[in-house]
Amino acid sequence: MRTELCDRFGIEYPIFVFTPSEKVAAAVSRAGGLGVLGCVRFNDAEDLENVLCWMDENTDGKPYGVDVVMPAKVPTEGSAVDIDKLIPQTHRDFVDKTLADLGVPPLSDDGDRNEGVLGWLHSVARSHVDVALKHPIKLIANALGSPPKDVIDQVHAAGVPVAALAGSAKHALRHVENGVDIVVAQGHEAGGHTGEIGSMVLWPEIVDALDGKAPVLAAGGIGTGRQVAAALALGAQGVWMGSAFLTAAEYDLGVRLESGRSVVQEAMLKATSADTVRRRIYTGKPARLLKSRWTDAWDAEGAPEPLPMPLQNILVSGAHQRMSESSDPSTVAMPVGQIVGRMNEIRPVADIVAELVEGFESASQRLNTIREG
Amino acid sequence: MRTELCDRFGIEYPIFVFTPSEKVAAAVSRAGGLGVLGCVRFNDAEDLENVLCWMDENTDGKPYGVDVVMPAKVPTEGSAVDIDKLIPQTHRDFVDKTLADLGVPPLSDDGDRNEGVLGWLHSVARSHVDVALKHPIKLIANALGSPPKDVIDQVHAAGVPVAALAGSAKHALRHVENGVDIVVAQGHEAGGHTGEIGSMVLWPEIVDALDGKAPVLAAGGIGTGRQVAAALALGAQGVWMGSAFLTAAEYDLGVRLESGRSVVQEAMLKATSADTVRRRIYTGKPARLLKSRWTDAWDAEGAPEPLPMPLQNILVSGAHQRMSESSDPSTVAMPVGQIVGRMNEIRPVADIVAELVEGFESASQRLNTIREG
Repeated sequence: MRTELCDRFGIEYPIFVFTPSEKVAAAVSRAGGLGVLGCVRFNDAEDLENVLCWMDENTDGKPYGVDVVMPAKVPTEGSAVDIDKLIPQTHRDFVDKTLADLGVPPLSDDGDRNEGVLGWLHSVARSHVDVALKHPIKLIANALGSPPKDVIDQVHAAGVPVAALAGSAKHALRHVENGVDIVVAQGHEAGGHTGEIGSMVLWPEIVDALDGKAPVLAAGGIGTGRQVAAALALGAQGVWMGSAFLTAAEYDLGVRLESGRSVVQEAMLKATSADTVRRRIYTGKPARLLKSRWTDAWDAEGAPEPLPMPLQNILVSGAHQRMSESSDPSTVAMPVGQIVGRMNEIRPVADIVAELVEGFESASQRLNTIREG
Repeated sequence: MRTELCDRFGIEYPIFVFTPSEKVAAAVSRAGGLGVLGCVRFNDAEDLENVLCWMDENTDGKPYGVDVVMPAKVPTEGSAVDIDKLIPQTHRDFVDKTLADLGVPPLSDDGDRNEGVLGWLHSVARSHVDVALKHPIKLIANALGSPPKDVIDQVHAAGVPVAALAGSAKHALRHVENGVDIVVAQGHEAGGHTGEIGSMVLWPEIVDALDGKAPVLAAGGIGTGRQVAAALALGAQGVWMGSAFLTAAEYDLGVRLESGRSVVQEAMLKATSADTVRRRIYTGKPARLLKSRWTDAWDAEGAPEPLPMPLQNILVSGAHQRMSESSDPSTVAMPVGQIVGRMNEIRPVADIVAELVEGFESASQRLNTIREG
């Protein structure tokens, strides 16, 4: 399985995997794809620095990338105290009452309560870029579309290409005009921030709109080699995956249960493709999440409207942290795509990648049989 | 392009096209696919009889099918007068006021006002089956899933297979248990009644759940040969299309503009993939429609909640009729999928089918190149 992106990045397969886990990212790169480490969880640039040093030592010299969360327009940021004032007390009360109703225990140490937000702040995302560029990274992706022009210039000056997520052809074109090198076409099925247009329609639409100006990575609904084949048949140059690697054996974030799985893995293993919702409750912009008692609470009558970005994430960051430290799989706040219905076992990254390659080959052979009649 | 369905149905390509237009259905069958005529618009069984006689004379002996709208559970039907009583006056007032606000002219002859509903009534759908079975039809599809058991038995006794739409693997399995022969896996992108799960995830999920018990037709988001290739790569035995043939040159329903196009065609040619909404306002169940001033009115603050099926369709049937006789493309009530963004020209059915075949072949060759590296 080889497209021009393989030569450009020095990878064996055009499989790009976004993951918050450095263990998974490194394993993806070692398996022949491009592991892309999500930086949003690093509040402290030094933590990211340490993890990227670990990546450098554990990727066998294979290429890897990083993913930041940075709006194109620099928001008025202010201090944490200023932002806190913009959150209505009724919203805070709802969150507190919901956590109590759901039986989510308080944090063991309340001191870290509001830190969950920092990765979403512009200044912190910029520090991620600064740190990452000191390492031999091969890609910086931005989950919120085009980064600001000076960041694109900074990354390009280091010889690193920039990828940006897009949920419409219009946004994809704008990203390329802004200097973005690779567009991740993120369909409605995807986990996290996602638009209305389904992958089947969106991917070829963006491929055609860009008309070769930039390669397209297909995202949203990919978990098997058949879906990789579909993506490449639709004109993508590669795939961008995330959810399907959350149940990788190497994924080691979050509280562990006795089974050895993390709480969120336990929740995802049980879920069907119908068990996701697309809501503004995670960040203020629509994002697909695992359906849980937490998302149900926000859907219930009387729940407040989510706040705009970044206030909503600030509002719920303490709740996210409490839920992530709890051992109850029914109360998680976890971005995941509809492919969660197919995530039914814990597998090593190498096995997931091997299936993607084999499944692609079988699907391609199947089309030959159909074509030849 | 040949799958086992080609042999089973005696068709050249596994392309099944649902359309309310007998002109389009016949042209699809002549072009090597299977035209499936939607019956819901025939209030009078005799009208359907006449149209099917026309089909018999204009399909060059090629196979065709019909599509009915029939819930599995027989609803308490009552007379039109009884049902009318269940519709709140506030809803009627909203519809009247909206039509006035939008400048939709009254019907030239008010006598037909409520007839738009009848095809959705169980007794009328049964009359469609009775009429259709007198013709050499090769398929009866049901847009609402499994038909009642006695209808399946009646159709099977005539040697005709039954297809049913499904938006989840659970429903697909139930259909097959009920005796349905072919499952149409309808992804979120599709026009008309559609579920939450995107085609990229839904199609292979239903293929795997059925595990060969019944072939799967992929529906939702297909308008080009690349999408046909994606569907077959994902394990479907064929494709089920609808929207993409609404801008066929042969489509002759509705009021014509000076351009020679119908009002709804004019509206669809202008629309992008973002210009659809999925709402309960058409029938009472979620259906994807072209975004228009009519759908906007139902989204506006103060608009009532749509009624359950079949009441909502009864409520709006007069409005649908008025809008369908108006010459304003901005006020239409038209089911269409997200593929509408690619419907940018009026083309003969034969050209659409030819592109599907050629596009499939190119996509399949593209995968070979990628596989061989």
